[in-house]
Amino acid sequence: MTRHDRPIDETHDPGLRSWVDSANTAATDFPIQNLPLGVFRRRDRRESPRIGIAIGDQILDLALCAEAKLLDDLSQSVRDAAAAPRLEALMALGPSAASELRSRVSRILRSDGGIGDRHLLVPLDRADVQLPTMTRGFTDFYASLNHATNVGRLFRPDSPLLPNYKHVPIAYHARSSSIVIGGTPIRRPSGQIKRPGQVEPVFTATERLDYELEIGLFVGAGNALGQPVPLADAEEHLFGICLLNDWSARDIQAWESQPLGPFLAKNFATTISGWVVTLEALAPFRVPARGRSDGDPVPLSYLVSPSNEAAGGIDITLEVLLQTRQMRIEGHAPHRLSTSSFRDMYWTPAQLLTHHTSNGCNLEPGDLLGSGTVSGQTDDSSGCLLELTRGGQKPLVLPTGETREFLADEDEVIFRGWCSRPGYARIGLGECRGTVSAR
Amino acid sequence: MTRHDRPIDETHDPGLRSWVDSANTAATDFPIQNLPLGVFRRRDRRESPRIGIAIGDQILDLALCAEAKLLDDLSQSVRDAAAAPRLEALMALGPSAASELRSRVSRILRSDGGIGDRHLLVPLDRADVQLPTMTRGFTDFYASLNHATNVGRLFRPDSPLLPNYKHVPIAYHARSSSIVIGGTPIRRPSGQIKRPGQVEPVFTATERLDYELEIGLFVGAGNALGQPVPLADAEEHLFGICLLNDWSARDIQAWESQPLGPFLAKNFATTISGWVVTLEALAPFRVPARGRSDGDPVPLSYLVSPSNEAAGGIDITLEVLLQTRQMRIEGHAPHRLSTSSFRDMYWTPAQLLTHHTSNGCNLEPGDLLGSGTVSGQTDDSSGCLLELTRGGQKPLVLPTGETREFLADEDEVIFRGWCSRPGYARIGLGECRGTVSAR
Repeated sequence: MTRHDRPIDETHDPGLRSWVDSANTAATDFPIQNLPLGVFRRRDRRESPRIGIAIGDQILDLALCAEAKLLDDLSQSVRDAAAAPRLEALMALGPSAASELRSRVSRILRSDGGIGDRHLLVPLDRADVQLPTMTRGFTDFYASLNHATNVGRLFRPDSPLLPNYKHVPIAYHARSSSIVIGGTPIRRPSGQIKRPGQVEPVFTATERLDYELEIGLFVGAGNALGQPVPLADAEEHLFGICLLNDWSARDIQAWESQPLGPFLAKNFATTISGWVVTLEALAPFRVPARGRSDGDPVPLSYLVSPSNEAAGGIDITLEVLLQTRQMRIEGHAPHRLSTSSFRDMYWTPAQLLTHHTSNGCNLEPGDLLGSGTVSGQTDDSSGCLLELTRGGQKPLVLPTGETREFLADEDEVIFRGWCSRPGYARIGLGECRGTVSAR
Repeated sequence: MTRHDRPIDETHDPGLRSWVDSANTAATDFPIQNLPLGVFRRRDRRESPRIGIAIGDQILDLALCAEAKLLDDLSQSVRDAAAAPRLEALMALGPSAASELRSRVSRILRSDGGIGDRHLLVPLDRADVQLPTMTRGFTDFYASLNHATNVGRLFRPDSPLLPNYKHVPIAYHARSSSIVIGGTPIRRPSGQIKRPGQVEPVFTATERLDYELEIGLFVGAGNALGQPVPLADAEEHLFGICLLNDWSARDIQAWESQPLGPFLAKNFATTISGWVVTLEALAPFRVPARGRSDGDPVPLSYLVSPSNEAAGGIDITLEVLLQTRQMRIEGHAPHRLSTSSFRDMYWTPAQLLTHHTSNGCNLEPGDLLGSGTVSGQTDDSSGCLLELTRGGQKPLVLPTGETREFLADEDEVIFRGWCSRPGYARIGLGECRGTVSAR
């Protein structure tokens, strides 16, 4: 049984309320139906990093829960994993462990029958949220047909889409050492750039710095080398999701990428949001993916399953906002650049994972799969500036009158994402922020 | 002072002999002047993995040396690192730590004034050599102009070399989870293949399985995110080298690689040899790289330094041998397919490392940089079958009369590498072996 076939259990009940008041407001990303996991450290104490669950504007500290003997009825392996300083051990145990922990935490936090002890909480604004994993394998896909088409059109107006796109989930290996947590400043990288009309490249700070709006998928239980994961089992190996900004230097990319793909154009930094929303929390929002059209080729059989067809997509609304230095000075709120939906992807998360392992490649707990830029079909749903400004040809105009082809120093990029559906609580991904700093 | 400017010290003295007799033969890869590091486990005991030094046909067990108090005069950090179950901690300490350990081990193993206790040794043939590191970042370069030209010619006969090649050290991120130690069987991967003349791809076992002969460069001390490593300092961040086989499925590669580069064509397995030869051991073999010709463009200034110009290359002779099942049955020795030299690379190891960090990307101890296929200018010096057989057009004939366009099941590929120079002991890299198994 794949995960989205499971009955939606009481932890999703929209009537549930928490004794943490801020979790009961309509606007919160973190109601009691969400319970995303992260790693944090209190700013005011010298404590080691520990796992927490975001709830309203607070974090439920699992180390304090364990001390208070609130986790004693969990299996030993889950208790041990919950006491680790990172999420990999819990991820490795697979969906039933995550589910067991979710169920326990849901009961702890309920207003009705919950624990009600505010000493278990740490305010989000007094914590440093850290990377949830020491990801070893980080792979970035290219799963939005709209993005691939928009980008392709800039280089090949007559045949924007390459012949393999509708058959192969395209991906490249990315760099894990430079994954940073939301809020970390992003230094404008230098690199080799060949300006239009010039014969020789120069080494200089990028002049075409961009963001890419993506969903990050965390691998849960791994697979052994040589053992592909069938599509029907793929979601058993997916733990949860985050927001991911695949920062890109377009001028470096244009010059270096042939024939082996992007390298220094991408590996200077990737920002992720800190709260990992589990697949279980997303269960009410599973939908058929709608990136594929009627005339598209049927994928090869290893990429087809009834459950993937029925509910392989996830209905997540995503938005990108920008706030410049001048906007902050003049008191402008962040300006929305685009809105898109993760359900518009051409390939589903399960297809990405199965394809990745189809040659026997082994995935490990905590590995991260980037979805690729999430773009819709309209101009205001493009997930990067390269698309929004048509490669810099059509600058954006901001509320201050400033214009942008690409990012300027001190620009802050903010991603938000959430799921909503009548009859269910809103499930948010939090925010993924990064501000560009000069070299 | 970069490392190769250092005086060659007494540990390189060709007159040094060891009380381990097998280390004093002319043919050994591991004389007392080499002292490569690895991680091993005795087959006959339940002991945890530990660091050893290969010497002749033996391993000096550093855990036993520590027990015998032979490492007591080392700095505490080096002693701690030598007691770890992997090499990263030692690598992180930089070249002076490796040098301190080398000097001590050289004295332990000398026939004149050495320790002479055979209980410190484990025979190589009674040990399982393991991966020396849990490499997180694995990057594969493309640093042989000859290889790039030969491969390019297959696809673009008129302009084999892309315009960026002589300016940018081309690379892509590779997969670290599937790095395996020499001797591990290599399963023939399946994947999407579009056969010539067919409209639709099929999912099947690769029909064009290839090896790629490379040198692996281990990163020693890392650099912080945002802090490029200048070329003059680059070798302070390189710990040592191994042999590396970048197995490649050419048919999967041809179909999947546009626009983001190779992915499943490569990440099913990468084999490395187990003994890490330090840059210090290679000091007598430093030479100017000779892959660059007079008319070639001068690299951008971040890729130029006097020491790199003078001795950025390493004179390593490399060879590829093949032994098929039939050859084994008929008693044929492995057949040599090619010989090449690492000094023929277009870019030096220091240039690869500096380029990798030039945008601020952080490298970590134990990271692995593949050099890219090492090919010479002649037909018999090509480091992969794609080149040797011109994309399968010109099959190889083996001593049994068998032919090969690409690898068959049960073919064993063997890489060897060594440095030799009059007046110095021969320094070998050992072997890197892998046998193809059917799915």
